[in-house]
Amino acid sequence: MTTKTLTKLNGLNTEQLVGTIDAIKNEPALARFQFRNKNRWVTGGENRSTIQGFYGAGQEDTSRDKPFEFTNGEPPVLLGDNEGANPVEFLLHALAGCVTTTFVLHAAARGIHLRSISTEMEGDIDLHGLLGLDDSVPAGYEQIRIKMDIEADCSDEELDELLAYSRAHSPVCQTVCRPVPVVVERVAR
Amino acid sequence: MTTKTLTKLNGLNTEQLVGTIDAIKNEPALARFQFRNKNRWVTGGENRSTIQGFYGAGQEDTSRDKPFEFTNGEPPVLLGDNEGANPVEFLLHALAGCVTTTFVLHAAARGIHLRSISTEMEGDIDLHGLLGLDDSVPAGYEQIRIKMDIEADCSDEELDELLAYSRAHSPVCQTVCRPVPVVVERVAR
Repeated sequence: MTTKTLTKLNGLNTEQLVGTIDAIKNEPALARFQFRNKNRWVTGGENRSTIQGFYGAGQEDTSRDKPFEFTNGEPPVLLGDNEGANPVEFLLHALAGCVTTTFVLHAAARGIHLRSISTEMEGDIDLHGLLGLDDSVPAGYEQIRIKMDIEADCSDEELDELLAYSRAHSPVCQTVCRPVPVVVERVAR
Repeated sequence: MTTKTLTKLNGLNTEQLVGTIDAIKNEPALARFQFRNKNRWVTGGENRSTIQGFYGAGQEDTSRDKPFEFTNGEPPVLLGDNEGANPVEFLLHALAGCVTTTFVLHAAARGIHLRSISTEMEGDIDLHGLLGLDDSVPAGYEQIRIKMDIEADCSDEELDELLAYSRAHSPVCQTVCRPVPVVVERVAR
């Protein structure tokens, strides 16, 4: 009988990581994922999302016994009562998390041991866009700035290269940096 | 003595809405907002965001007594333990919420009374991008589809026009549809 030791680096099972990459190389369709969300308006700027199932690695995922639920809200200055963070803030949370996880993943793939990552970010929006007061002003973020403080057992040059690589391979960052088609359809009643 | 009645439509204070728009018309700098997020890596695909202050309407907001906190995680098939929804799922939550709130806001501005909004959405990702296995595959979402079921006291034509307008004026949707610069910087240690 052999006992298999779980090999983890940066909290990731590196054997599973290598196994996943090999499986996708052998069967590219395993890389296709579809994520989903359901949302229901409550009132005003308050609405609630329910996230549970997704498709990936060739099958429907069933690992979540119950859904995640998140509430969007707005602060008083934006006509709300702080029922939750607002959507543009949730986007920052998604972006910070994705760049971080992409960084951690590729650090593990390179054998780099990370000790800590702390991120601060800010994004600028001009409400002329949202309010439709000036069509020359984009409604979205004008720019988002991310500052990451990273402790790791490698050189600054390796960190900088890995950070640029992570920015270029982070799904959320590349959804923000590049134009991604959003198809909005109304259900006929 | 006069008693002022609070005029609400779709849960929004329409007097405050008109007042906000007038204030921005008189002083355009009031429309400048800066949103922020702090994130800390926990381990593997788990990290946590803290969202509290922001700048907007000419001042630092102080309406939130304590921060909102959100945890990104990953499902087992993506090397995690479902510590939270994952970043690309949080992006869907942000997007659904923003299109909904933009719709509710402009419905109120037009005097349209809404009864309900339910949204289902899905987004496709090919992990060849994230994993760096094929540089011709974008790391981000390939496409996001949103289906909205809306009950309101107006015609289908008005709903369709308002929905197209909301898509074009939603900050998160316009951050996804259009390329937005993301500047990533490493803090020197």
